[in-house]
Amino acid sequence: MRTLLLVADGLGDRPVPELEGMTPAEAARTPHLDRLASEGICGLLAPIAPGIRAGSDTAHLALLGYDPYSTYTGRGPFEALGIGMAVERGDICFRCNFATVDERMVVVDRRAGRIARGTRELAAALDGMALPGGVVALFRESVEHRAALILRGQGLGAAVTDADPHAEGQPVRQVQGTDQASEQTAAAVNEFVRRSYELLRDHPVNRERVAQGKPPANIVLPRGAGVAPHLEPFREKYGFTGAAVVEVGLIKGIAGYLGMTVVEVPQATGGYDTDEHALARAALAALAEHDFVLCNIKAPDLAGHDGDALRKVAAVEKVDGLVRTLLAGLPTDTILVCCADHSTPVAVRDHSGDEVPCLIRGPGVRTDSVAAFGERPMAAGGLGHLVGNNLMPLVTNLMGTQEKFGA
Amino acid sequence: MRTLLLVADGLGDRPVPELEGMTPAEAARTPHLDRLASEGICGLLAPIAPGIRAGSDTAHLALLGYDPYSTYTGRGPFEALGIGMAVERGDICFRCNFATVDERMVVVDRRAGRIARGTRELAAALDGMALPGGVVALFRESVEHRAALILRGQGLGAAVTDADPHAEGQPVRQVQGTDQASEQTAAAVNEFVRRSYELLRDHPVNRERVAQGKPPANIVLPRGAGVAPHLEPFREKYGFTGAAVVEVGLIKGIAGYLGMTVVEVPQATGGYDTDEHALARAALAALAEHDFVLCNIKAPDLAGHDGDALRKVAAVEKVDGLVRTLLAGLPTDTILVCCADHSTPVAVRDHSGDEVPCLIRGPGVRTDSVAAFGERPMAAGGLGHLVGNNLMPLVTNLMGTQEKFGA
Repeated sequence: MRTLLLVADGLGDRPVPELEGMTPAEAARTPHLDRLASEGICGLLAPIAPGIRAGSDTAHLALLGYDPYSTYTGRGPFEALGIGMAVERGDICFRCNFATVDERMVVVDRRAGRIARGTRELAAALDGMALPGGVVALFRESVEHRAALILRGQGLGAAVTDADPHAEGQPVRQVQGTDQASEQTAAAVNEFVRRSYELLRDHPVNRERVAQGKPPANIVLPRGAGVAPHLEPFREKYGFTGAAVVEVGLIKGIAGYLGMTVVEVPQATGGYDTDEHALARAALAALAEHDFVLCNIKAPDLAGHDGDALRKVAAVEKVDGLVRTLLAGLPTDTILVCCADHSTPVAVRDHSGDEVPCLIRGPGVRTDSVAAFGERPMAAGGLGHLVGNNLMPLVTNLMGTQEKFGA
Repeated sequence: MRTLLLVADGLGDRPVPELEGMTPAEAARTPHLDRLASEGICGLLAPIAPGIRAGSDTAHLALLGYDPYSTYTGRGPFEALGIGMAVERGDICFRCNFATVDERMVVVDRRAGRIARGTRELAAALDGMALPGGVVALFRESVEHRAALILRGQGLGAAVTDADPHAEGQPVRQVQGTDQASEQTAAAVNEFVRRSYELLRDHPVNRERVAQGKPPANIVLPRGAGVAPHLEPFREKYGFTGAAVVEVGLIKGIAGYLGMTVVEVPQATGGYDTDEHALARAALAALAEHDFVLCNIKAPDLAGHDGDALRKVAAVEKVDGLVRTLLAGLPTDTILVCCADHSTPVAVRDHSGDEVPCLIRGPGVRTDSVAAFGERPMAAGGLGHLVGNNLMPLVTNLMGTQEKFGA
């Protein structure tokens, strides 16, 4: 028995007036998703808990059976994972901005004019910096002014304040730790920030920016410290291997951190134009090698963030196309789960705490009378209302791999 | 976006033979509640957890998003809040009885003949008493023989036994503490009890009672110690202000303790004769000043305690009248939640652990096919089965004020 967990990113939504009060999933033409609903057991799933607004990171942790509350200490580690950094357990990780300060260390522009080019060179000047106490700084650029910092060393704590003052016209903050281990981290961050100014101030990239009348990216401001959590590797936790066929860096990062195989699919752009059939074929190929495959398609979430109901309908239909290709090659001994990681309603243009559709189809499933995919048709299904952490026990129960609790 | 949380106190019930097997909510004529059910999303709510019998205090804590298990250490603090005492965080609070003891300190009457008058004067003789260790005793009468005691001082614990032997013919108990901080409390309580006897024994109120052949209220017996919990103020927890338009002292006390504005409504009697339209108008007025308004109407609970099915039907129809007046003036950007704090079945004449109807109506809500208010029609609704602590996340999700957990 194998499991394919298909996550339609941000698919859940609310009734949309433009769609005559239907949600995009209800309004879309989805014969293959409807077939799954009809052949499986359906319900609604709250990724974290009812009403709680989940991020993609916390939601995927929950769907994969990890408790997000005890493992999620801050954005930093997931930001670093999301841009492909090799995060190790115990690393102290930060989100960072390239920013502009004046000679008094007052922040003039928190985003250095939303710098678009040259950050790779700037990051390279900081990456690998040796800091007091045997701490090493790993640093890498993300998109625009964004970057991530890892502090790796012995006995570091994550309970530190931000260097970023979160407002312009304010001086760069001295970072402080609330305990001895975190004070050691604070000293390292403060030294990193000080030296980032020394190293970036006269960097060729910045000399060119100044010549062009642009604000120089002359300092790095870390914030959102978190410790890379001690997550049990996926294979040790479940006794079988997992692969991830996903489009977004953040999810690739989490899967890799759990020791899952991350499959690259060149035609998967992570955009509206992604090749959903290529994703499906890659998932089927991964399923030949692994007992568990996570597949995530990003398009519905994009349409939600863009507030575009018609594009969201089209994105749901893209998910339906993915399912069509999946069903053509899916081994019969496969548990197919189809859900979302959170709702991204077009009216909200961001993640919301509304439940998402969830269905399980495969051998042994107690089917119900739901025959259509969507939030309201599936509310009456046999699964009832679940939370994200319920999913893996339901799956390993059907796979027959779960140990009995008791005698 | 604003929220009005309407709590019909004790509304939930069980099938009543006298009502042809319907519950009072099912039997009542409720066109406006039915309209809410039809326009909103419905379900059933267990205030604490399925089957757990909730008090009004623990239920309201849960509905407002506070964990009742970690914050409720005993009845004492809520008894004191309920009679309007200015409880402060860390106070050790007790429920008390005025009782009658003989000269050997054996309890002759635990309720001092259910003393009806004079307790204000007796309480005044004890209020403000200075006790060893810098502890001050605040003391106030409630109805009949009931009263509340607050011990305020440094380093007091709440793990103490009762002075009340809970049976007549038994001597007053020496109070004992299970740790050092609670031993300090025990010493203060024992001294308070001893001096209550000294001060009340020959009090004019008691001389008159003895002359009339009534048992004197010559001692105070504390029990049910609890520490006033460290609850995060409502405004800090949610980022918006709240007001309470409620009839019962206990709920007023909890709301005030959370820093909510407590609105007095002179026509709200807390009885069967309360003016439900005055309550609705006061709630609408409060909604103009606050983002969140709690409104509680007591009548259904009274009818449950009285075991009177027809009066309970009438009380539910009073709630419907309240909703009629509400709907006439409710701003369109309002999330309206209608539920109960617990069931008070007429067959039980006390609170039960049965779920209560719960509906949410307002912009963004995923409606369902429920069209009638009541326990069984709403069981099939889109909300499914909730617990009290789910409510505020669902509300702040719809209000758009909840921070995202993750990225």
